[in-house]
Amino acid sequence: MSGDLELFGAVFARGPVAAEVSDRGWLQAMLDVEAGLARALARAGLVPPAAAEAVTAAARAEQFSSAEIGRAAEAAGNPVPALVAALGKAVPEHARQAVHFGATSQDIVDSALMLITKRSLPYLEADLAAAASSAARLAEQHAASVMLGRTLLQHATPVTFGLKAAGWLYALDQARLSLRTFARTQLLAQFGGATGTLAALGTRGAEVAGFLAQELGLIEPRLPWHTARIPVLQLSASLGLTSGTIAKIARDITLLAQSELEEVAESGGAGRGGSSTMPHKHNPIGSIAAVSCTRRVPGLVATLLSAAEQEHERGAGSWHVETETASELLRLTGSAASWLSDVLGGLRVNRQRMRENLERAGSAPLAEAVSFALIPKLGRSRAQELVKAALERAADSGQSLQHTLREAPEFSSALAEAGIDDSQLAALFEPASYLGSAPEFIGRALADHAAFETQS
Amino acid sequence: MSGDLELFGAVFARGPVAAEVSDRGWLQAMLDVEAGLARALARAGLVPPAAAEAVTAAARAEQFSSAEIGRAAEAAGNPVPALVAALGKAVPEHARQAVHFGATSQDIVDSALMLITKRSLPYLEADLAAAASSAARLAEQHAASVMLGRTLLQHATPVTFGLKAAGWLYALDQARLSLRTFARTQLLAQFGGATGTLAALGTRGAEVAGFLAQELGLIEPRLPWHTARIPVLQLSASLGLTSGTIAKIARDITLLAQSELEEVAESGGAGRGGSSTMPHKHNPIGSIAAVSCTRRVPGLVATLLSAAEQEHERGAGSWHVETETASELLRLTGSAASWLSDVLGGLRVNRQRMRENLERAGSAPLAEAVSFALIPKLGRSRAQELVKAALERAADSGQSLQHTLREAPEFSSALAEAGIDDSQLAALFEPASYLGSAPEFIGRALADHAAFETQS
Amino acid sequence: MSGDLELFGAVFARGPVAAEVSDRGWLQAMLDVEAGLARALARAGLVPPAAAEAVTAAARAEQFSSAEIGRAAEAAGNPVPALVAALGKAVPEHARQAVHFGATSQDIVDSALMLITKRSLPYLEADLAAAASSAARLAEQHAASVMLGRTLLQHATPVTFGLKAAGWLYALDQARLSLRTFARTQLLAQFGGATGTLAALGTRGAEVAGFLAQELGLIEPRLPWHTARIPVLQLSASLGLTSGTIAKIARDITLLAQSELEEVAESGGAGRGGSSTMPHKHNPIGSIAAVSCTRRVPGLVATLLSAAEQEHERGAGSWHVETETASELLRLTGSAASWLSDVLGGLRVNRQRMRENLERAGSAPLAEAVSFALIPKLGRSRAQELVKAALERAADSGQSLQHTLREAPEFSSALAEAGIDDSQLAALFEPASYLGSAPEFIGRALADHAAFETQS
Amino acid sequence: MSGDLELFGAVFARGPVAAEVSDRGWLQAMLDVEAGLARALARAGLVPPAAAEAVTAAARAEQFSSAEIGRAAEAAGNPVPALVAALGKAVPEHARQAVHFGATSQDIVDSALMLITKRSLPYLEADLAAAASSAARLAEQHAASVMLGRTLLQHATPVTFGLKAAGWLYALDQARLSLRTFARTQLLAQFGGATGTLAALGTRGAEVAGFLAQELGLIEPRLPWHTARIPVLQLSASLGLTSGTIAKIARDITLLAQSELEEVAESGGAGRGGSSTMPHKHNPIGSIAAVSCTRRVPGLVATLLSAAEQEHERGAGSWHVETETASELLRLTGSAASWLSDVLGGLRVNRQRMRENLERAGSAPLAEAVSFALIPKLGRSRAQELVKAALERAADSGQSLQHTLREAPEFSSALAEAGIDDSQLAALFEPASYLGSAPEFIGRALADHAAFETQS
Repeated sequence: MSGDLELFGAVFARGPVAAEVSDRGWLQAMLDVEAGLARALARAGLVPPAAAEAVTAAARAEQFSSAEIGRAAEAAGNPVPALVAALGKAVPEHARQAVHFGATSQDIVDSALMLITKRSLPYLEADLAAAASSAARLAEQHAASVMLGRTLLQHATPVTFGLKAAGWLYALDQARLSLRTFARTQLLAQFGGATGTLAALGTRGAEVAGFLAQELGLIEPRLPWHTARIPVLQLSASLGLTSGTIAKIARDITLLAQSELEEVAESGGAGRGGSSTMPHKHNPIGSIAAVSCTRRVPGLVATLLSAAEQEHERGAGSWHVETETASELLRLTGSAASWLSDVLGGLRVNRQRMRENLERAGSAPLAEAVSFALIPKLGRSRAQELVKAALERAADSGQSLQHTLREAPEFSSALAEAGIDDSQLAALFEPASYLGSAPEFIGRALADHAAFETQS
Repeated sequence: MSGDLELFGAVFARGPVAAEVSDRGWLQAMLDVEAGLARALARAGLVPPAAAEAVTAAARAEQFSSAEIGRAAEAAGNPVPALVAALGKAVPEHARQAVHFGATSQDIVDSALMLITKRSLPYLEADLAAAASSAARLAEQHAASVMLGRTLLQHATPVTFGLKAAGWLYALDQARLSLRTFARTQLLAQFGGATGTLAALGTRGAEVAGFLAQELGLIEPRLPWHTARIPVLQLSASLGLTSGTIAKIARDITLLAQSELEEVAESGGAGRGGSSTMPHKHNPIGSIAAVSCTRRVPGLVATLLSAAEQEHERGAGSWHVETETASELLRLTGSAASWLSDVLGGLRVNRQRMRENLERAGSAPLAEAVSFALIPKLGRSRAQELVKAALERAADSGQSLQHTLREAPEFSSALAEAGIDDSQLAALFEPASYLGSAPEFIGRALADHAAFETQS
Repeated sequence: MSGDLELFGAVFARGPVAAEVSDRGWLQAMLDVEAGLARALARAGLVPPAAAEAVTAAARAEQFSSAEIGRAAEAAGNPVPALVAALGKAVPEHARQAVHFGATSQDIVDSALMLITKRSLPYLEADLAAAASSAARLAEQHAASVMLGRTLLQHATPVTFGLKAAGWLYALDQARLSLRTFARTQLLAQFGGATGTLAALGTRGAEVAGFLAQELGLIEPRLPWHTARIPVLQLSASLGLTSGTIAKIARDITLLAQSELEEVAESGGAGRGGSSTMPHKHNPIGSIAAVSCTRRVPGLVATLLSAAEQEHERGAGSWHVETETASELLRLTGSAASWLSDVLGGLRVNRQRMRENLERAGSAPLAEAVSFALIPKLGRSRAQELVKAALERAADSGQSLQHTLREAPEFSSALAEAGIDDSQLAALFEPASYLGSAPEFIGRALADHAAFETQS
Repeated sequence: MSGDLELFGAVFARGPVAAEVSDRGWLQAMLDVEAGLARALARAGLVPPAAAEAVTAAARAEQFSSAEIGRAAEAAGNPVPALVAALGKAVPEHARQAVHFGATSQDIVDSALMLITKRSLPYLEADLAAAASSAARLAEQHAASVMLGRTLLQHATPVTFGLKAAGWLYALDQARLSLRTFARTQLLAQFGGATGTLAALGTRGAEVAGFLAQELGLIEPRLPWHTARIPVLQLSASLGLTSGTIAKIARDITLLAQSELEEVAESGGAGRGGSSTMPHKHNPIGSIAAVSCTRRVPGLVATLLSAAEQEHERGAGSWHVETETASELLRLTGSAASWLSDVLGGLRVNRQRMRENLERAGSAPLAEAVSFALIPKLGRSRAQELVKAALERAADSGQSLQHTLREAPEFSSALAEAGIDDSQLAALFEPASYLGSAPEFIGRALADHAAFETQS
């Protein structure tokens, strides 16, 4: 298998998608398109059924050498003419007429890309489904696991780990929805001949295009899309969305797993996350690998988007750009999804540590709660200024915000003015009672996920 | 209006979208969100209706200075705290409790971005609809306007200008569909408070979020999406698709308008397309401007995609990246669409010149037709070799391919073997009879377009 | 001033570079080029000195409206023809012949871009110099401030804060060197006329180009570079390098400032880093803003790089792409540098907290030290396995690695075998004695910095 | 060899650079670094010379399996620990102490990347030198080959093909200079150990780093650059500059080779540029392939630039991003250079066709010449308006601009007023006399090139 560096494949080519976008995957997909075309021509009565059968029988990747075809591709700038020549030699003479009849190279490459995508998506979906299922489980199990919310990498107000997982779940299901919509609407066959007229087939071209799509299990295009790259752009958008979603989750895990936080940890076999020099290391290597994959995606998406500026009936360069780029995009997103599925499936959540970190943070994360309790009577700006002053006083004195509010006369008088007594004040500093709609939001994410799974 | 360089705004800020994404547009949108929030709070009974009315009355951009608020934004790194302070001053004291209650800065900025998008999309859609309508007209009018197909910037087999326009039409309607799907599903309000729990509102947060969405005419989110950037990514994907589609069409026009081809020309008033030094110039400045806009889009899409890696409950830097970037993306796509609508609306198609260019190209573009006529009897490889040999002979002798095939004994005998007589040979060299399924494809694009317009 | 959204300008348009790349900056720069050209023509004897003086006198931005010129730019797709017309009207009739004689629009825009860059670089350099100077001070002051090294966001072996600052210093000085090399070699004037021949000036063109460069204080180009975009690509490379360097430093600060680490803090006036809802917040807003700026840079660099594919003697679209993009690149890098200079200038380093965090991390960060002490006698793999086993034992028992190694028989016997006694073991766990070449590296960075400053 | 898809390798992996960045190239380079480290340790007296010799003897890629090491890399997220284990097994026991002593994985990977780059650059330089030499030859041979200048894809004023080639030459030599500067200053070894202190080597680390650099033929770094990615950014900038330069040249060739222009053609063996369906095709496949390679570069450069934001002492994800990305960047730039060298070496320039195209364009391309001849007497605006009017009259009447100017009374009287007689008018329409400083510019490019070659 090629298509990536084996040495770095553990990170960037994890899971089964990598094989689909390899030389072998491409070779088989292009052969499948040629065979499908032969059968489509036979269904239209343009070549004998026996010819189509012979082409189909010969169209097995193991009978061809991608290295040889690749070398022969230099003359044309793409491998199809060399593949057609090799396939022509591999079939009996009577069957040669059924090979590549009426097609242009781009018909084969585009249809093959869509076949490869069709074959890759179920693997990607399986990993995303597993990740979503793990996120749902985490959301449910940790609906009441209170922890620090963090904004701009600073302590904010409390959240629950379940809410965090619910946010992951929502995004994962949105990414899955995008991929499904893509699969349902954009997995188009390509068949247009030299310039999109299919003139070599007389007036039978459109009919053969329909048969070809059926043979390949792809969608019949309304018209050739040689230079209207909607399917490629939609693929790249859906993979981008998926990658961006994985990036956020994996990034959260690398941050929560920081030695100073230790709120989550990846599980993994012996040696996982080790270092070549530091014996104590247990790096969260799964989420780091996932992040690495996703950071290579935006540049590739931009490349495909730039390539949409295709000239006339076939671009001079822009078309060629897509094959390796789209392959990498599938491979990297597939690898990231595989890592994420693994990471979320085995994530160890340290509820105890979350609680400790929250306690260690002191009362500041609940300053907002006090502030909002004061606003109705004191107004927004006076309430905020008062709490800020109390926070400063607390910091200077080394005492808690709660203590400071209760003991310092100027603050305690304001509390009295706002009608907040000591027990109410104490209640304001209970994180579990400052979670607002978190349970509602978790419930929605879980309900939507259940509905999504039912539709599947 | 700011948000772009006025000096280059004719190219990059054409049309009404630019105003929506300007400082004024952002200021009004943020004020609208604050006012909507006040009314939502009032509907929930959390503030008096009079307070909400007062906030709504005060929330007019012309009463505030974006320069002043912008300067005051330095402390917080975003303009919302300064805006809230200014708005608080602008309302009577009784109304201050209704300002920004329970919201975090990102709630306001995200909801405002969605409002701005909602306001921009109809303009974008109007220009795309006009462009599609022009493309449909061109597809219909020029269904029989035969011209050279060109692949890799070289002469290929004949097409019609109608088929080319049909390809543009298909892509434009797909882009419009993508934008409509976005508008229907992703124009979400944002309301999550400090960390997505809406804790400041007790358990009423989710309800207020629903009211807020109604007040703003946005969709109620299922849960806060502070760090699950699906709507931003989907927006960027739809705008990218739109931009890529415009790029292809505009690029075709710059190529067809080349001085050596002159198959199309832009219309335009006096001086349009002039040069500061060459008096004879009529540059196709509309399509050039459209291309310029679209070439800035892939980098911006990549930036937004990279920014999806948001940390914890609010990203440290990644969130901030989005505002100007998304504004530019809207502005550039809007400007490109405005140029394209203008260009296609006035495109002058030179059918006569298309015919002449085709004739000047000689018989080579129909070599494929001869080749396919020979294949049934001679087989693929012999047919192709024979035609290539005849093309070389024709080039050497300075005579046409048709003449060479008919007169040179080795070719004429092969024609005889294939059962092709002189009149059949002549017919093979008639471009209009080598258009295959072009009429069918044009018909489909027009039918789909009609159906799309009916659904609108 | 325009060129950005004022509302977000505090983040993205900090410092004086923003004014240089604004409409006003561009207008003045283009006028300066026209005036410089008039004087160059006069020096060549092609126009009367009085005409050149009149043009120079009229070329003041405040006399022209960028909005008006921008609107008039629609016809040509660039503002130069409209500017030339306005400038022509602003000078006495005798001087009109000296306006724009022999120039093409791109001559003016390219030379203006280089002028703007020349004016921006000293500001950028001043901020980078200030940042480097602060980094040097920190490297010196904290050469012995031991802290946790962190790799993959996990505790690694000890470092000093001085070493970290030395790494920042090295990178900052490399970025400054790159910008200086750019300024010394690539700040080229542009003058080529319609197609790079300067034919309108007969054979005097190259001479006038030389005079023009002198008048503008730019470098005389060896030949016109209308479509050989070396200076733009080199600018974008140097700004990219600068931005990437700032990103690393600012990112470190956001991480070190995390509430859980608190090893550094930004200083700043009242309200700096505040939140619209959480009274306790002190976000490290300077480094966050710097990161935000730098994350927008890679996409812009890619856009400029794509635009290098310029066609023939002037690109159809690719040229236009550069003006706003290069302006943004300067603005964002300038803003990031301004933030960084501010942040490093006031950075509060909490040496005490660094020490505490290191202690809290226990003995694991020095596991490597033990491992290397064992290797000479036990061999690499046995040493590493032994230390890993001791780490696991220590984790299980809740005791320190040092204690475990000393007390558990299988470890203590191995230590004995390796000839390590108790006091040597204790020494291995002293972070300050496991800093290797850190002092040497700090010394080098400081020496190189001193040498660099001397050359300035 | 892997690292790319073999099927598309003819386009994207042409030339010898591809082998250097393959799995085999990486494996050998990493082994060379380990061996170099062993020798460096021996030179410092830290391990016995025999151990270093044994490691060096064992460090041959053919003895190791990149697939196996790649699979084993999953645990650590990078292949170094697995490689170190395999190398340890491959050497006698006494030599194991010399393997990887004091190094971290990134030391090996970074140094290997620099070795790979060092090995790739001479191939890249050879192809660029050949391309520059061809461009110099073309500039010289075609210094007087007059042709149409084209701006915005429209006819402009005349140029020579020699001037165009001189512009290519200038840019190629600038790209070469950039690569040489990189090689001279940035090919740094990396050696910092776990966190950049080299603590495992006591105080000998910096000394060993110097020896290592010598052993590898790389530059000794002043301090470890694990997270100060200057060398990677400078590499990416130089490759980007090279790629952008190739893009412009290759794009010009695809445009000049358009069937309608045919001013240049690629040479090439039988079948080069053929189509799978159209027998008449001779696509300029070399320049198309070069363009394809270069269009994938901006996205990769952006990815590397984004990865500069490295955290603390080693990035969590950003570091990993670089290996495959930098490999691809080298491969694609190397392939593009190989194609360009081939294309320029065999470029067929059709001087006759250039002349014909110029004649067919009529007199419009010289309208500027007339305009400038009139300006001294009539002033800029009257001169331009008069020529524009004459151009319109000529277009309407179907006669040449020259004829119209001479015959129509209002124009002939203006000519008389300007003191231009018929023979002077005729001279204005001679393209060869409207070339301005083109010969001077060509001469400069050739002189600079000669000087550059002398320095080599």
